[in-house]
Amino acid sequence: MSFNIGDHLHITIFGQSHSKAIGVVMEGIPAGEMINFSAVENFMARRAPGKNALTTTRNEPDLPVILSGLNNERTCGAPLCMMIENHDPRSKDYAEIQDVPRPMHADYPAYLKSGGFNDIRGGGPYSGRMTAPLCLAGAVCLQILAKRGIKIAAHIASIADVQDLLFDPICVDAFVMDSLLARSFPVLDENAGENMQVKVQEAKADQDSVGGVIEACAIGFPAGYGDPMFDGLENRLAQILFGIPALKGLEFGAGFSSAKMRGSEHNDAFYFSEKGEIRTRTNHHGGILGGISTGMPIILRAAFKPTPSIGKEQDSVSLSRKENTKLKIQGRHDPCVVLRAVPVVEAAIAIVLLDYLL
Amino acid sequence: MSFNIGDHLHITIFGQSHSKAIGVVMEGIPAGEMINFSAVENFMARRAPGKNALTTTRNEPDLPVILSGLNNERTCGAPLCMMIENHDPRSKDYAEIQDVPRPMHADYPAYLKSGGFNDIRGGGPYSGRMTAPLCLAGAVCLQILAKRGIKIAAHIASIADVQDLLFDPICVDAFVMDSLLARSFPVLDENAGENMQVKVQEAKADQDSVGGVIEACAIGFPAGYGDPMFDGLENRLAQILFGIPALKGLEFGAGFSSAKMRGSEHNDAFYFSEKGEIRTRTNHHGGILGGISTGMPIILRAAFKPTPSIGKEQDSVSLSRKENTKLKIQGRHDPCVVLRAVPVVEAAIAIVLLDYLL
Amino acid sequence: MSFNIGDHLHITIFGQSHSKAIGVVMEGIPAGEMINFSAVENFMARRAPGKNALTTTRNEPDLPVILSGLNNERTCGAPLCMMIENHDPRSKDYAEIQDVPRPMHADYPAYLKSGGFNDIRGGGPYSGRMTAPLCLAGAVCLQILAKRGIKIAAHIASIADVQDLLFDPICVDAFVMDSLLARSFPVLDENAGENMQVKVQEAKADQDSVGGVIEACAIGFPAGYGDPMFDGLENRLAQILFGIPALKGLEFGAGFSSAKMRGSEHNDAFYFSEKGEIRTRTNHHGGILGGISTGMPIILRAAFKPTPSIGKEQDSVSLSRKENTKLKIQGRHDPCVVLRAVPVVEAAIAIVLLDYLL
Amino acid sequence: MSFNIGDHLHITIFGQSHSKAIGVVMEGIPAGEMINFSAVENFMARRAPGKNALTTTRNEPDLPVILSGLNNERTCGAPLCMMIENHDPRSKDYAEIQDVPRPMHADYPAYLKSGGFNDIRGGGPYSGRMTAPLCLAGAVCLQILAKRGIKIAAHIASIADVQDLLFDPICVDAFVMDSLLARSFPVLDENAGENMQVKVQEAKADQDSVGGVIEACAIGFPAGYGDPMFDGLENRLAQILFGIPALKGLEFGAGFSSAKMRGSEHNDAFYFSEKGEIRTRTNHHGGILGGISTGMPIILRAAFKPTPSIGKEQDSVSLSRKENTKLKIQGRHDPCVVLRAVPVVEAAIAIVLLDYLL
Repeated sequence: MSFNIGDHLHITIFGQSHSKAIGVVMEGIPAGEMINFSAVENFMARRAPGKNALTTTRNEPDLPVILSGLNNERTCGAPLCMMIENHDPRSKDYAEIQDVPRPMHADYPAYLKSGGFNDIRGGGPYSGRMTAPLCLAGAVCLQILAKRGIKIAAHIASIADVQDLLFDPICVDAFVMDSLLARSFPVLDENAGENMQVKVQEAKADQDSVGGVIEACAIGFPAGYGDPMFDGLENRLAQILFGIPALKGLEFGAGFSSAKMRGSEHNDAFYFSEKGEIRTRTNHHGGILGGISTGMPIILRAAFKPTPSIGKEQDSVSLSRKENTKLKIQGRHDPCVVLRAVPVVEAAIAIVLLDYLL
Repeated sequence: MSFNIGDHLHITIFGQSHSKAIGVVMEGIPAGEMINFSAVENFMARRAPGKNALTTTRNEPDLPVILSGLNNERTCGAPLCMMIENHDPRSKDYAEIQDVPRPMHADYPAYLKSGGFNDIRGGGPYSGRMTAPLCLAGAVCLQILAKRGIKIAAHIASIADVQDLLFDPICVDAFVMDSLLARSFPVLDENAGENMQVKVQEAKADQDSVGGVIEACAIGFPAGYGDPMFDGLENRLAQILFGIPALKGLEFGAGFSSAKMRGSEHNDAFYFSEKGEIRTRTNHHGGILGGISTGMPIILRAAFKPTPSIGKEQDSVSLSRKENTKLKIQGRHDPCVVLRAVPVVEAAIAIVLLDYLL
Repeated sequence: MSFNIGDHLHITIFGQSHSKAIGVVMEGIPAGEMINFSAVENFMARRAPGKNALTTTRNEPDLPVILSGLNNERTCGAPLCMMIENHDPRSKDYAEIQDVPRPMHADYPAYLKSGGFNDIRGGGPYSGRMTAPLCLAGAVCLQILAKRGIKIAAHIASIADVQDLLFDPICVDAFVMDSLLARSFPVLDENAGENMQVKVQEAKADQDSVGGVIEACAIGFPAGYGDPMFDGLENRLAQILFGIPALKGLEFGAGFSSAKMRGSEHNDAFYFSEKGEIRTRTNHHGGILGGISTGMPIILRAAFKPTPSIGKEQDSVSLSRKENTKLKIQGRHDPCVVLRAVPVVEAAIAIVLLDYLL
Repeated sequence: MSFNIGDHLHITIFGQSHSKAIGVVMEGIPAGEMINFSAVENFMARRAPGKNALTTTRNEPDLPVILSGLNNERTCGAPLCMMIENHDPRSKDYAEIQDVPRPMHADYPAYLKSGGFNDIRGGGPYSGRMTAPLCLAGAVCLQILAKRGIKIAAHIASIADVQDLLFDPICVDAFVMDSLLARSFPVLDENAGENMQVKVQEAKADQDSVGGVIEACAIGFPAGYGDPMFDGLENRLAQILFGIPALKGLEFGAGFSSAKMRGSEHNDAFYFSEKGEIRTRTNHHGGILGGISTGMPIILRAAFKPTPSIGKEQDSVSLSRKENTKLKIQGRHDPCVVLRAVPVVEAAIAIVLLDYLL
């Protein structure tokens, strides 16, 4: 189903951009897990809008409330339900687009699918706001994974034509990852980060937007987890990640560049490490073979399109008048979704990895 | 589950590379559909090995048998089960790799997952051979889609560094697609195709392999089908496509290149066509917005790694002796999986698209 | 999953007896349905405790709040989430049973399953209180079904040894069903109803409880809906109905009494009615053959055990001291769950029937 | 889906009564399990027709073939696919009923559901023959359960008005169960068994049929397995058991008789056994509380209607002529399905119990 995902750990998301509340129900979290709720709030703050000049000025404190699933601060086996109330909708901004679908948004197909009864305000359930409950779920999963020695972090690999360094697919470690998690603009190369911010501000000044790429990494995930064919790590990660609005491409390990390589160059040779563990000399496979983890760092990159909502006037159609028209989108929008999408990617990965371990 | 996929159309695949048979059970095919079985066989022939110098010499006629689901040559509502017997296994080729996992294959993680009880012969259920039943299912779906005016075709977009032309994302039509389906080496630019074949033969001569990219297109799929969040066209296409062994990257529409664009450049403007249909001027979105079809051609590209099985000696480990060792893979293997993967990609797309229509 | 059910209409329930809130997320409700919320509240009032001398004095107004899924009072295609806050928990009543599981309750197996981290207060997620969100979902489904000419009603077929009349399986009609829905003690034979109430009050006076049977009927459900084997009407109705705490038996049509009949007596002969519809002369099959509806009234009966919570002292064990002990349950409890279970059965049926129509 | 069931252990059934073959795909069986195939064949023999005067003379040896999933006689993690070829269809017997649906069969609703394209021969996928692949799957599960100390057996509790003894719900043990499994007519009281056989032969002589009840028991299943709400042992057992054609009622533990009891009489008191295990003094709960096992014997009873196919002339309708008509069913049929259903019930229980343990 659209808003349900997962096998042993089953996630149900509810809400729309401008509904009374949005939230998530998590079933399958083991009983007895202590949840550090301020860590959840801190994780949510990484995704929250309005925190700097690069993001929308929509100001949502996004304080979650736990409705069920805890007993004496520990999970109790009942579904864990967390809710965030929507406080700052400004629904009046969305009057015109009821009739004139915004280019590159889901307005037009959502109109068709719902027979015109879709909630257009803020994109309804197609809004990037639906990634807030995904992050709530991910924040809980990240805590549980951390207790099992598994760490996930992501960074902005590129914005427009500015490239960050990439993770070292062999040597990436907790130190590198923790330093990323501590940065308000998560890049490996701070110079690149500054240039990226310039690109975003230029786009904003032009009433325009830019796209980018996020690279994510998971370390400590044990070898031998996953499944062949349709239920492997890549399949499931892809299914959840393509649920993030604006994500249009995904690659694991060497990804698209592997298509240009020869086997002798691409194949990752196995060897026994000094600790007696089986490792690979290179990591073009991105930690996954046959849908199953190999114990090497799991590496993926996701491409995000530029924010569809731009201030410039655009061509569109009037659904009621059945004619071409112009549209100028009002409202507040991120000139680049990539920065706020970083914790969302981490959350999605965390949900999938924990599912396999349960 | 690993070998199950689909919602209204549910596919279950069974078999291993060297089991007595492989096959597929399809549940949800509407009753009353006439199945042209020779068209199914023709489709299977496109994937079959041994047809030219570029593919493995393993010779499997791959003649499917229908076990259930038909009545008077029409589907009857019962599960449609089709089976292919495995005739030419040469299992003796796989003795050594029981202990020494082949680099870049699933042998090592499969060993871990199964506690050493996995069937290593030909890769067991991790083999590319498992795409044969996927093609069987896809061949049936393609027929049913064709009756509803929907056509799917794919071509080799690149091998190594040789690029084919790409589909025109606005104007791609049945004529172009039919001509691709008729070619034994499906490319849009035949010169590029010849250069690609040289690359494959060079790799083969070097006991090596090469990777490549496949681009696929679906036209005629009506607007308004799909779902938001986790169950959209991109999510489901990704889930099934990452089930094809060797696939390591996937992008829709402009994909990774959209990450470098500005919104004003990337946004596809809506307009009313002369026929009164809503279309977009450009098709960077690849026919999908918010997980739902827009009526524009659905366009995707998938990156395939070079065939892991190469004749050159490689470094690996002995699982029993717990030491580093060398491995030289015997047996017959495709120097490039891309050619045979073209119909597999088409089949996977067909399965997903039909599911949404049921 | 435990708290998820449904195919086209997917229900996710959350909460525990004493959590901050309980609720339900419904995905798959068609967009554009007008929801009469006061009718939902009226339906909830039928299940609410504290309304007469026969039910627990726990007083929960059970006013639901809609968190998402509506737009201009109509469903909009987003998940419909409804929540009820828990106001009157009196958690102190449950101190002792943390260590001494109540006989015939889920306390002991829940303790095992959760490693002792289960929320024992009010039975946690095993509580009959979890049927409140089921009723919320059912109330919405009943409205949508009613617009399609489908009506569902249930009555108390027996309490202890007092039998109500049964539905006429051929002639049951909207008039009979509406009159049941209007009664605070829903029986067909009011004399029997009075005798049943005496039985309940006697049990209550003895600090004891009694069981009973509920019979339910659905009319207007069109022929030809359902599925063979594992996904038929009987399978799905059974799966959801056994989710109602205290339900221990279920039969369709003639049910257990069919086991004593001969085929010639039991078989329901087909005939064309005066309206030209195919009907059966008798309805031992209960409106379902091969898992699929026949257009005849759907009839089922469900047996409920006596409320496990009784005031009398009982034998149990101390989990911590690992010894036999005595337990006297405090708190307020229904002496017979059957009365409050009537709308729950209707709700569960409504959820299943609507799912097939979507 | 109709022919798919299970969570960790996923079963897919294919075939029709008169298709080329019927079979089952099992996904999720742990790798490394040794399968005793002659034990599977012996189990199938218990269900096979034609073995005595009480069952249909249709003679199907029902020898299964393993198509995939084994390696060196052990499961290997790939889907286990087993197939039985259909040899003795006599399809000509079914010409008339294409137009005149048999009373109490699925013919009419199946016709509606499939738009008239259903395979009527032998009932197509609605046939009792579809329980053969269910038994194949169950036979494998029973072996794996047996290695974990879990045993399942069923007996004929009644045919027509002849009652067998019931299992002692506290003391039922492996000795009693093994003796049942060894009997060609599985009853606890052999006198009752002889009387039952008389009833069946009388019905057969009258070209009629009779119904009956099967009682089943599982011992050794550990406490603490199952789930609350919709995914409990009762829910899942009910879902699969109602997939057995002719099953119309189901009860656990005291079942319908609990509805007549008072709580003080019905509640099963906990105590510590001499071995230090928590047990209950009585077992009205049938080994399941809150959907979770308690460690006590799991007890259920299922009611089967009389075989719908009887030799007597019956009233029905002509679908093409839209008029009432008479029908006299030719072909060979069991006068009582209960005998052959005994292993089917055991198989269904085994599939569910193993699923929870995986």
